[in-house]
Amino acid sequence: MEENRIRRPELLKKVMSAAEAAELVKDGMTIGTSGFTPAGYPKAVPLALAERGKKEKIKITLWTGASVGDELDGALTRAGVVAKRLPYQTNNSIRDAINKREVEYIDIHLSQVAQQARYGFLGYLDMAIVEAVAITPEGHLIPSTSVGNTPTFVKLAEKVIVEINTSQPLELEGMHDIYIPADPPKRQPIPLTRVDDRIGTPYIPCDPDKIVAIVFTDIQDNVRPLAPVDAISKQMAENLIEFFKQEIRAGRLPSNLLPLQSGVGSVANAVLAGLAQSDFTNLEFYSEVIQDSVFDLLDLGKMRFVSGTSITPSETGLKRFYENIKSYRQKIILRPQEISNNPEVIRRLGIIAMNTAIEVDIYGNVNSTHIMGTRMMNGIGGSGDFSRSAYLSIFATPSTAKNGAISCIVPMVSHVDHTEHEVHVIVTEWGVADLRNKCPVERAQEIINKCAHPNYRPWLKEYLDKALKKGGHTPHYLPEALSWHIRFETSGHMIPTLKEEAALMKEERVG
Amino acid sequence: MEENRIRRPELLKKVMSAAEAAELVKDGMTIGTSGFTPAGYPKAVPLALAERGKKEKIKITLWTGASVGDELDGALTRAGVVAKRLPYQTNNSIRDAINKREVEYIDIHLSQVAQQARYGFLGYLDMAIVEAVAITPEGHLIPSTSVGNTPTFVKLAEKVIVEINTSQPLELEGMHDIYIPADPPKRQPIPLTRVDDRIGTPYIPCDPDKIVAIVFTDIQDNVRPLAPVDAISKQMAENLIEFFKQEIRAGRLPSNLLPLQSGVGSVANAVLAGLAQSDFTNLEFYSEVIQDSVFDLLDLGKMRFVSGTSITPSETGLKRFYENIKSYRQKIILRPQEISNNPEVIRRLGIIAMNTAIEVDIYGNVNSTHIMGTRMMNGIGGSGDFSRSAYLSIFATPSTAKNGAISCIVPMVSHVDHTEHEVHVIVTEWGVADLRNKCPVERAQEIINKCAHPNYRPWLKEYLDKALKKGGHTPHYLPEALSWHIRFETSGHMIPTLKEEAALMKEERVG
Repeated sequence: MEENRIRRPELLKKVMSAAEAAELVKDGMTIGTSGFTPAGYPKAVPLALAERGKKEKIKITLWTGASVGDELDGALTRAGVVAKRLPYQTNNSIRDAINKREVEYIDIHLSQVAQQARYGFLGYLDMAIVEAVAITPEGHLIPSTSVGNTPTFVKLAEKVIVEINTSQPLELEGMHDIYIPADPPKRQPIPLTRVDDRIGTPYIPCDPDKIVAIVFTDIQDNVRPLAPVDAISKQMAENLIEFFKQEIRAGRLPSNLLPLQSGVGSVANAVLAGLAQSDFTNLEFYSEVIQDSVFDLLDLGKMRFVSGTSITPSETGLKRFYENIKSYRQKIILRPQEISNNPEVIRRLGIIAMNTAIEVDIYGNVNSTHIMGTRMMNGIGGSGDFSRSAYLSIFATPSTAKNGAISCIVPMVSHVDHTEHEVHVIVTEWGVADLRNKCPVERAQEIINKCAHPNYRPWLKEYLDKALKKGGHTPHYLPEALSWHIRFETSGHMIPTLKEEAALMKEERVG
Repeated sequence: MEENRIRRPELLKKVMSAAEAAELVKDGMTIGTSGFTPAGYPKAVPLALAERGKKEKIKITLWTGASVGDELDGALTRAGVVAKRLPYQTNNSIRDAINKREVEYIDIHLSQVAQQARYGFLGYLDMAIVEAVAITPEGHLIPSTSVGNTPTFVKLAEKVIVEINTSQPLELEGMHDIYIPADPPKRQPIPLTRVDDRIGTPYIPCDPDKIVAIVFTDIQDNVRPLAPVDAISKQMAENLIEFFKQEIRAGRLPSNLLPLQSGVGSVANAVLAGLAQSDFTNLEFYSEVIQDSVFDLLDLGKMRFVSGTSITPSETGLKRFYENIKSYRQKIILRPQEISNNPEVIRRLGIIAMNTAIEVDIYGNVNSTHIMGTRMMNGIGGSGDFSRSAYLSIFATPSTAKNGAISCIVPMVSHVDHTEHEVHVIVTEWGVADLRNKCPVERAQEIINKCAHPNYRPWLKEYLDKALKKGGHTPHYLPEALSWHIRFETSGHMIPTLKEEAALMKEERVG
């Protein structure tokens, strides 16, 4: 079995326990790991390192692909090992530490991490810790359920620790397409013109002399249960699909749409589920994360091909994927996130980008990272890579949050991740606001009338009226621009007066 | 002479006066024109149309490349002819009308205008009005001092009016390189890997049957005097050049830098003038606008090659260009703005993007369009095309404006055009803040200590301290986040107290 997974005999002598491998990590090191969502990240060595961290002082800078499982972000954070972290996270422990500023967190566009590392902007990379399904006779690494930034981390790191995960089937081999662009001034066009193009190698090139430890483990990807499709998400999905049909009728989209990118979570699931029930066929997916609903679309014959950087289904979805891997691998390619999220490719293919917003303002600016402008939720992730270069850039959000105490449509967002310049469409359960070719005041009217919760519309209109009296191309009444957030922080609701709050609370969220 | 400029004899019968041509414009039409900065825009027909507009009700939607001369934006606005306008402007008359909301204005990333027009997002294009130096035997158009969006406008428009401008020398022929990408899903890689690559044709393809009028004119480009290089701009340029040298020493930039993009105006001029006096050689320029300082760099042999979409020197610079055109045309290519500003190419070439900010906040968000969050200055222009894909994204601003009454470093910007995610470096006359690989609080300290005016530093620190007590990854004290802008609107200065204002006003701006 070892020989099946480690095909370069001289490397067999590097096999050791996770605890032994974790001893190779030194205080102050920068460590880059595999993993993108809770898929394909190292597990055994981080857990062993966390054990070490409980007994001795050891602080590291941690680079990953994106979010990773609790064995890495969670255990290391709780053991106090993480001093600095990039570029994206979704783990409660590390999120809490980031917001307490116990962990320094750098929130970078996911497509830019690898090149910024190669450019030397992020400092020296001491070590890569990488999950693999196997090591080739040349010493190259076969990744598992994600690619993320692993190719560049392996290229840059002085030392590499490989975790061979035997819970990851060998049939994953061949699903990956590894391409690292040359750096300027020598970079060439990325030769990818179709979702199913293969442009690289099925392995991550690795100098075998760099490999200082190999650890066997069988800890499974810590996949999450599917976010349930609630009534609001379902309505948002229906609104969006109806919008797609209008665009096709208007001649602005082909009948099989253009390659889709979708964020993760309830809304994304609902949209893909809605497409599965629609009469769309021959769809393509060029995105980051591949979830259960994508398998549905493939199984139904409605989706032609899928490109991503990570497979992150639910527990049952993972079982389904493993059981049908020989069929799925014909229709799925996993790429480095520098390619899955590459603006050059996104603009060329004409991606329809669908991402979620925390809040949207009346002029179409989107906050996708900071609760009330200060507390980090997850990070910008790939939303900026896609929105800034997409054919159509769509943001979805329920019209309210916290049982109506928060309006997700506000006078001015408290943090901007996507500007008015790259937000084409807003979707809520109430409707679709098409912001293209509209000036700011037209956008405000469109968003208020189509997307805001009806209970908040009068207040948004009142704000807009007050702002219009102040004048300007993008009218704002600055003393009240952030007043909804301030009110929420002090009184737990955004509604302008307590009287109206009482009236609002009696009503239903969705009509 | 006419035969020299109109080389397709059957088109000679389309020659008419500007007034006759202007009659072809109908109320409600959408008109796309040539022009990018006051260079290469049509002049005679717009002036004639403005005359018509004084006598009869005629409203048009106007698309251009970017800003244009007063004969177009100014005269038509003052005659009440412009109902809607995109994508960028710098003209006092139209800016005033935009801020009074008499003109609807759509502020689009300059690289995206042509494709959004082709995708059908902007509506139907009735007519293109285009300045040319000549029409080829096939009916194709030789542009003059800019390319802008003209190739796509000519392709899409139902009818084309050509202004042959005899003040523009025939020697411009051959300087242009016209390439229109195919649209998704058929788009291919843009085959440009070096600043001096030619990938298209030297003319704008045009179906001669579309040409409904040809007008001769000799009105020169309404070029502007050079913004003088003041002490503050000079200091900013020195700071930036020193930063480049540090980056070279650190191995993060090659010794001849990477291709430079530079906005227009005083700071840009100063930086390029600073490079002319430095020992840098073999520089390359991949930008939008080519100004006098670029000719200096070419003449000194310090710059190898220049790519842009527009030549906009001063009056003396234009004379100098015309006199030496045979030499300059060996080293300058003019491209459509969809290519000069193309994110695919910008990321591939590794552009160093240098743009100006109206204000910057302590976390590195940049406002480059809206005075006090409401009043449109010019527009985002190409700054977003470049900043979002640059190798290094640099924003420059003096630390204060209005004789110190405004701090250009504020707690929270009143409008965001460039987010913390794509702003690497801030430069003021006080220093350079390197924001790469820094978490928000580190960025705030860097910006306050390196870039803010010393008189404002205590107030910024006081804000940051107050925000830190509120907590979160990106600390803000929302009730005061926009208080500096509110104070300016009510009292004409941003300084927190009148007592401190008095103290501040006694001091000099630059130490």
